[in-house]
Amino acid sequence: MIKVGVLGATGYAGEELVRILSGHKEVEIKMLVSHSYVGQKMSDIYPHLRGICDIVCEDLDVEKAAKECDVVFTALPHGASKEVIPALFEAGLRVIDLSGDFRYNDVEVYEKWYGEKHSNPELLDESVYGLCELHRDEIKNARLIGNPGCYTTCSILGMAPLVKNGYIDNSSIIIDAKSGVTGAGRGLHINYHFCECTENLMAYKVGTHRHTSEIEQELGLLANEEIALSFTPHLVPMKRGIFATCYANLKVDKTTQEVVELYKEFYKGERFVRVYDAGKLPESNHVSGSNFVDIGVVVDPRLKRVIVISAIDNLFKGAAGQAVQNMNIMFGLNEAEGIAQAGFYM
Amino acid sequence: MIKVGVLGATGYAGEELVRILSGHKEVEIKMLVSHSYVGQKMSDIYPHLRGICDIVCEDLDVEKAAKECDVVFTALPHGASKEVIPALFEAGLRVIDLSGDFRYNDVEVYEKWYGEKHSNPELLDESVYGLCELHRDEIKNARLIGNPGCYTTCSILGMAPLVKNGYIDNSSIIIDAKSGVTGAGRGLHINYHFCECTENLMAYKVGTHRHTSEIEQELGLLANEEIALSFTPHLVPMKRGIFATCYANLKVDKTTQEVVELYKEFYKGERFVRVYDAGKLPESNHVSGSNFVDIGVVVDPRLKRVIVISAIDNLFKGAAGQAVQNMNIMFGLNEAEGIAQAGFYM
Amino acid sequence: MIKVGVLGATGYAGEELVRILSGHKEVEIKMLVSHSYVGQKMSDIYPHLRGICDIVCEDLDVEKAAKECDVVFTALPHGASKEVIPALFEAGLRVIDLSGDFRYNDVEVYEKWYGEKHSNPELLDESVYGLCELHRDEIKNARLIGNPGCYTTCSILGMAPLVKNGYIDNSSIIIDAKSGVTGAGRGLHINYHFCECTENLMAYKVGTHRHTSEIEQELGLLANEEIALSFTPHLVPMKRGIFATCYANLKVDKTTQEVVELYKEFYKGERFVRVYDAGKLPESNHVSGSNFVDIGVVVDPRLKRVIVISAIDNLFKGAAGQAVQNMNIMFGLNEAEGIAQAGFYM
Amino acid sequence: MIKVGVLGATGYAGEELVRILSGHKEVEIKMLVSHSYVGQKMSDIYPHLRGICDIVCEDLDVEKAAKECDVVFTALPHGASKEVIPALFEAGLRVIDLSGDFRYNDVEVYEKWYGEKHSNPELLDESVYGLCELHRDEIKNARLIGNPGCYTTCSILGMAPLVKNGYIDNSSIIIDAKSGVTGAGRGLHINYHFCECTENLMAYKVGTHRHTSEIEQELGLLANEEIALSFTPHLVPMKRGIFATCYANLKVDKTTQEVVELYKEFYKGERFVRVYDAGKLPESNHVSGSNFVDIGVVVDPRLKRVIVISAIDNLFKGAAGQAVQNMNIMFGLNEAEGIAQAGFYM
Repeated sequence: MIKVGVLGATGYAGEELVRILSGHKEVEIKMLVSHSYVGQKMSDIYPHLRGICDIVCEDLDVEKAAKECDVVFTALPHGASKEVIPALFEAGLRVIDLSGDFRYNDVEVYEKWYGEKHSNPELLDESVYGLCELHRDEIKNARLIGNPGCYTTCSILGMAPLVKNGYIDNSSIIIDAKSGVTGAGRGLHINYHFCECTENLMAYKVGTHRHTSEIEQELGLLANEEIALSFTPHLVPMKRGIFATCYANLKVDKTTQEVVELYKEFYKGERFVRVYDAGKLPESNHVSGSNFVDIGVVVDPRLKRVIVISAIDNLFKGAAGQAVQNMNIMFGLNEAEGIAQAGFYM
Repeated sequence: MIKVGVLGATGYAGEELVRILSGHKEVEIKMLVSHSYVGQKMSDIYPHLRGICDIVCEDLDVEKAAKECDVVFTALPHGASKEVIPALFEAGLRVIDLSGDFRYNDVEVYEKWYGEKHSNPELLDESVYGLCELHRDEIKNARLIGNPGCYTTCSILGMAPLVKNGYIDNSSIIIDAKSGVTGAGRGLHINYHFCECTENLMAYKVGTHRHTSEIEQELGLLANEEIALSFTPHLVPMKRGIFATCYANLKVDKTTQEVVELYKEFYKGERFVRVYDAGKLPESNHVSGSNFVDIGVVVDPRLKRVIVISAIDNLFKGAAGQAVQNMNIMFGLNEAEGIAQAGFYM
Repeated sequence: MIKVGVLGATGYAGEELVRILSGHKEVEIKMLVSHSYVGQKMSDIYPHLRGICDIVCEDLDVEKAAKECDVVFTALPHGASKEVIPALFEAGLRVIDLSGDFRYNDVEVYEKWYGEKHSNPELLDESVYGLCELHRDEIKNARLIGNPGCYTTCSILGMAPLVKNGYIDNSSIIIDAKSGVTGAGRGLHINYHFCECTENLMAYKVGTHRHTSEIEQELGLLANEEIALSFTPHLVPMKRGIFATCYANLKVDKTTQEVVELYKEFYKGERFVRVYDAGKLPESNHVSGSNFVDIGVVVDPRLKRVIVISAIDNLFKGAAGQAVQNMNIMFGLNEAEGIAQAGFYM
Repeated sequence: MIKVGVLGATGYAGEELVRILSGHKEVEIKMLVSHSYVGQKMSDIYPHLRGICDIVCEDLDVEKAAKECDVVFTALPHGASKEVIPALFEAGLRVIDLSGDFRYNDVEVYEKWYGEKHSNPELLDESVYGLCELHRDEIKNARLIGNPGCYTTCSILGMAPLVKNGYIDNSSIIIDAKSGVTGAGRGLHINYHFCECTENLMAYKVGTHRHTSEIEQELGLLANEEIALSFTPHLVPMKRGIFATCYANLKVDKTTQEVVELYKEFYKGERFVRVYDAGKLPESNHVSGSNFVDIGVVVDPRLKRVIVISAIDNLFKGAAGQAVQNMNIMFGLNEAEGIAQAGFYM
């Protein structure tokens, strides 16, 4: 049994981790950390977990964590992780961090997009970008994972085959992405008040969202050249889901069918990537509650442009599910253990 | 491995059965029957199931069913089950029927509330009402289960301890119930069009809903006297959930705390019933996606009236989950096998 | 032109007042008061109002209000009104208060249900309960209106004909009420976070909600005896709407048709009350965005019980619309001026 | 008073027309035509209209229409209009058609995108494309209006200033559009079943949606050259709203502020177009229930790309509201008569 701790257990990503880990056969949850709810049962804060996980939340004690756990998941607000993680890391723990702090190869990219100094740049050499389908081998031996963002997982996996194979003009990439509201977290803000949010659609951080840099880093690695692209996030009145509509100009003459074949080949053997046949497209509830990445492709021959539709569940494959997938890889377990369930659709 | 078939696999209850059974360790799905989708893969109709259940739907062949299956679940539209079930039963299959046809002890009650003759009254002697928490012993040896309705499961379990213990005036029972829209099934009707349904609330079949008779039958058995009660169903703009607000006049002087104790005692050892401490109440998303029945109680001393709040997931404990729970009991498995997962809350 | 001020203009009831008053032909808005948004345009806070109402919000100046306005609407948080209203009142202004502070005839009832001393009990003699259909004559000459709550408007008008005519056992009244989320206001609370609220249903303040006392007061007046009743509020995942399902035991032998006739007679000439024919029932979106009160009735002869379904829009007839209706009456205008529009349904 | 008829009164666009026209001071509704509901009151089908519009629906009688009406609105399913409109037109009626049949200058474009012969190509010379802000002068004297589609109104007005002024590379235009579900109409289809639609997001008709050709026609006219562009419609789980996120590569060096100025100048004096200041962006509920078109602009200097956000209410400015705006222009009324109301936001 792998002994795990979850830091930031009472946020939405934390709750999803606890929910998934509670059903994972090879895992024993040893510690839930939540500053706001010290001394309260997880199931008092999230009553659906009663009888599933009644562990009492505690404050962080690094020594205790190091003694009791093999690995910790950190699902802390931005900023909080960077203080805690070096201590955990030095104490010998394996760490899977869900923040943006350890996702970058180049500290300057981080500092430009986050607008602040990185406090532990030396750890960036240790950390591995935990996009399982692209970095599986490095993940196996990693001690520190920068678990990818939700938008980025969806966007990168959606565009990877085209970029890797040089099918498109990389300067023409536009990603119009839509997110469910859990992506914004559990914090209170008027934008996420039910009455402001339901029956409403908005774009935000147009041209400036931090995930842009993550996507550019990874697609750039695949292309072996620098890539700059448009990324526009939208907030959609639903709880779960990331849905990316990606556009690019084709440099090659290919039909929808041929591009679909490319994708099927690229993702051959990947259990959690489902490429759609030509003529079919994913919808966000095809993946809700599951670790799947669903991808569909349309070539518009009139414009010689390709449109890729990619969908994931932001809390699952976009956060907690992929974190557990990373853990499975790191500990040599079946990669699908605990995360193979069907989505709930309804 | 228990070999199962699902009839009516492409309706909402059928889909939920397939979803749950696909994750059940002791089950092998041998046959999916769907008149409307013969020859199509389950996962073409419900794309979230791709890679989970890609079985091809077929038309009903009773002989084949009898040969290949140990048990069949029938999730057919009202009326369809009564033609099919006798044949399945005679062929030696165990049958768990999700329709209303085999839930009654007294054929006259059925005929009065359903407004038609029962075509197989002789099978009512064979059939067992599959409310697991109340009829576990009979279920063990049953060959034909009348799986309870969603409203009824929620209402009966909500009121059972009070009725059984004679705490209330049985003539004063009022159940004001609210349902998510999956309860209405997948059929097309203007009432379930997104634009008519979202941002709307309605009551329907006031004083005449068939589930009334099921509730009266079961509470009457517990009370050992005939009970007639008010039951008012409402449609709420959410997908899942049954939420029953039940009222009755107390015959005894009891506090909320004392009634809570009664409930905890009554449901002692029941894995799927969670009684709330005084001062706390269930909400519908505490049970979404799970087999739990959550119950809270308030005594209003000003009026000497008790209010019971009971919540289930209509597709899970209210249909497919309880059906699998029945199967587990019938086949001597761990009663929670395949249905012990945490609800999804978000 | 009637010169009006709105205090608390940026809350949900305040916004609805501004929206309605902006389209009212006999009204000129002179002053919008909002502590939180002093110096900001109403249309910067609520961008849908741009070009409709671009007035700058200011802090309260009672003297200025008295000089510039004929009437003020106070849509302040509980507690804030009672400090402000005496000053406004003494300055000679007519006041329509949307809080609970001036809705009571008996200060003891207020103090019992609100759990605090009333700071201006002497004003209760001046104030008139602004339920237009029941108190029209007193409203005409009132200088201070206690504008009714949303639940109470819906519940009282739903039960008034039965209570007034002695058709029911008044000790048997149960009101199971459901509200959209705007009823909770614009304040931030985890319960109203989109992700907690959508796809969820909850009951709250069971047996203890303050509106209970308002309903009891008014129905007691109609019955000419004290009435105590059950009132259970629920939160439904929709923005607007109050939907009350009311139960009572009949003392007389009446059919649905006869009770419908009683209602039609009782509300004859009332423009904003629509009684449904037997066999039809209101739904919440029949009244969304309008000042209508829709009422349907079912007699259950099996139980000799009557079920009344009553629906209003909580922000409109349940708050701002009725406040404007009160103003129209007070100033001798056409009672429907500015509030006669069709609801939006979709 | 202008005497009007509405054909297809019981569809969603028809209902919105009736709702708006019922509050229009210069209009008398003389005739509501609905094949499906002959003999039924409009307010029986849409109960929110009771007391607002209780007119009985009838079957179409062209002669009667010609005698009783000055103008008819045709909100018929695709295909139905083209049979009826020539007869109405010849009978001397002015016609405002909400279908796609009379929106085209070039019959070949119509036939290519609709995949069928146009039955009345000669009427295309008579018909005027009713996008009020761009074709006001022609509309004044038109006898037949092709009322624009919802996606197209939003997209064209969003891009017009850039295209007209040659700021962008016209071959780079990508419009990623999102629609509420009323855009799909009242017809029954599993895609619009509440349970399939809520908590879901989908793209459809990628690269092939008919509205593409309308947008290309109008932007081509403004550019004085042929334009081909990407248009991707999405279905969003909300009732109302069109939200277009438009991308294009800039040919000129301009800041966000400068492009905002261009838009403000272009739409100077347009009552229903609201251009946002730099740094602010429209959201779909800023326009819900109103005739406004809200437009915001972001220049991404990193990519030399402009992103335009444009939002309308699909039923209002995208259908019925603009139709009434056209009528107002045709009959020399105040252009805003009956459609100047504030949106409902909540």
